[in-house]
This record gives sequence, structure tokens and C-alpha cells, in this order.
Amino acid sequence: MRLPKAITRLIEQLEKLPGIGPKTAQRLTFYLLHNPQTELDNFAAAFQNLKRETVICSICNNVAETDPCRICSDISRDTSIICVVEQPLDILVIERSGGYTGLYHVLHGAIAPLNNIGPDQLHLKDLLPRLKSDTIRELILATNPTMEGDATAMYIAKLIEEKGLNNFKITRLGRGLPVGGDLEYADDITLTRAFEGRKEL
Amino acid sequence: MRLPKAITRLIEQLEKLPGIGPKTAQRLTFYLLHNPQTELDNFAAAFQNLKRETVICSICNNVAETDPCRICSDISRDTSIICVVEQPLDILVIERSGGYTGLYHVLHGAIAPLNNIGPDQLHLKDLLPRLKSDTIRELILATNPTMEGDATAMYIAKLIEEKGLNNFKITRLGRGLPVGGDLEYADDITLTRAFEGRKEL
Repeated sequence: MRLPKAITRLIEQLEKLPGIGPKTAQRLTFYLLHNPQTELDNFAAAFQNLKRETVICSICNNVAETDPCRICSDISRDTSIICVVEQPLDILVIERSGGYTGLYHVLHGAIAPLNNIGPDQLHLKDLLPRLKSDTIRELILATNPTMEGDATAMYIAKLIEEKGLNNFKITRLGRGLPVGGDLEYADDITLTRAFEGRKEL
Repeated sequence: MRLPKAITRLIEQLEKLPGIGPKTAQRLTFYLLHNPQTELDNFAAAFQNLKRETVICSICNNVAETDPCRICSDISRDTSIICVVEQPLDILVIERSGGYTGLYHVLHGAIAPLNNIGPDQLHLKDLLPRLKSDTIRELILATNPTMEGDATAMYIAKLIEEKGLNNFKITRLGRGLPVGGDLEYADDITLTRAFEGRKEL
């Protein structure tokens, strides 16, 4: 059976989203057919305005409503620490944990040679001028604990050393067992890191 | 951190979809931020036109581009059999299997007292006139093999009997082990049905 074009079109659009396969896209589309037109219009508006009503902060590259963003323009934040993350979503997660009060810098990616993403594709150039300020005490490289994230962190650390900008601490987030995790299910590398990072009680 | 309104709005919209939780909605929204505006416009158009460019077939209630739908207006189909299904998606699945060449009737639901869906909420009234034709030889009640689907099938069968329309066969799809399934993982009811429905080799 050939499906109506309007249905096929929405199925094909939804299939492009990560983690949504053909079956799920189909199920969602047929579910949406039961929704009133106003609800479909709400969906349409939300998609259309996603980027139109957001800007990239010219200081930290976070996605925001204003430039500079809410965090960069918040005078109560600690301007002596900058936390480098891969994606804007990482900021959301860190802010939710509530333990960090410094500033951020979003790279919008990580070095991944297999996907043709080198240092030039990242928002790295605008990080260096921020580090030249004398107020900076620490730079936290909070890229993901993956091959790409580690490579990116090493690259940034080396770049800073080359530029002679190392009058501040450079740190990386601690590695070890996740809280609530089970020793039995920890992988070898995580366990090795947990032993390396052990602390006296 | 308060997220930009445009981002929150899309997250909230996506969360309304079945099977998409807050985390997935967030991940999808931040993924979409990396898409060009034209792609977001494509999404918007697909949502907006889903219902505008489709109609409900006045004969079988299937979702279609034309009225009557492609199947109802196909003269090569067997008009002596009508297969009753719960949803338009069911037609897609049956058509894909390729083994059925008759007509359909979509109920757009099943009797579910817990969700306040009674026979009046279903597209049942327009089924009876279709059965008055002398050409009908068989009515397949292909509602889902669930409590609701079974109740709906029983209700329809009884209704037809009451109206004295039983000059045709009324059937229900066979129950048993799914092809490729494993006896070990079959549930008790399925196994009981499989024994009841056993066939001589």
C-alpha cells in the first residue's frame, strides 16, 4: 500500500532523528494523526522557532536567549574558573548538579579524525583570549571521558602550554566508580582509574 | 539554569509523544540545534500538513489522500471480504504482508471502558450498512489479540447477530506461536491457544 504523501513525509523526517527508527517514526506519525490541528501547529512552531529565537553567546558559545548569555552576564558567578564542555547540553547537566558556580566554554564538538572533525571545526580560537585575563585561576577540561574527549582535552592542554599561558591550574574531572554503581559491573578501565584515584578515609 | 524558551517549548512538545521521555526530548532538541533552519522548516511543514493533506475515507475510515481511498476504489480487490481493524497502521502492516486482497474497515480504536471508550466512540455505525450487501461472504475481525480487541470483536459479532445480518462467515485471526518464536519464551495463554489451534500435518 502506498501511504499518503503527507504521512510518508513526516515518517521520513522523524526517521532522521537519532534513536528513532522506521517503526518508531511510523508509530509516532499515526499517533499524531489523532491530534487536533492546533497541536500539530504547536509542533510546527516549536521546530521553526528553535533556532530563530535562540542565539549563540559570543563569550562562551552556549545556546541562549540573549547575548551574552544568562551565565556570562551573571555577576554572582565565579569568573576565575572556566569549565570547557563539548555541548550546550553538558552545561544543563552540570548546572542541574548545582556544585559548580564558575563560567563555561562550549566547544560544540570534540576532535574526531574519523568524522573529519579537527581542532579548526571546534570553537577553540575564542577560548585562548579568555585565558589571557589575570583573574583566571583554573581551567576545567570537562570534555567527555571518551577517546575523542580525552584527545580534545590533551590537545587544549598542549596548546595552552605552547602559548605560554600556564599561570593557572588545568584540571580534568575525576574518574572512578559512579555513585550507586556496582563493583561487579565496572569495566576494567574504570576500575583501574578508580584504584589510581583512591583516597584516604 | 533556565533554558531559552524556544528550547523548552520544543522539549515539552516532544515529551508529549508516546515513548519519548524528558531525557530523550532534551537530547533530540539539542541535536536539532545543529540542523540548518531549512531542515527545521521541513519538520514544521511535515507536522503542519500531516492532517491538512489527508482525508478519512468515507467508506472504510482509512487515512488517505483521496476519498474513497486507494483500496476502496481499487476494482481488482475482492469486495466479498471485509477486514475490521483498530487503526490505519494495521492496514499498512496487513498490506505489507501481502496475503490479503479484500477490503478494510477501520474502527479508530477498541472498546476500552477504563479509558471511557464505548462502542459509540468507534466507527461502527458505518460498518453495518456495508454488511447488508449480498456480495459479502466473510467478515474478518482483526482487532488486536488483547482484552480490548477481543471485547470489541465479541461486541461486533453479537451486534451482527442481533441485526440478523449473519448470512456470511465471521472470523478472527488465528492464535498461536509467532513464526520464529521460541517455545521456551511463549506465555501460558499463547501456548494454550497454540494447543487449541493445532493442525494435522
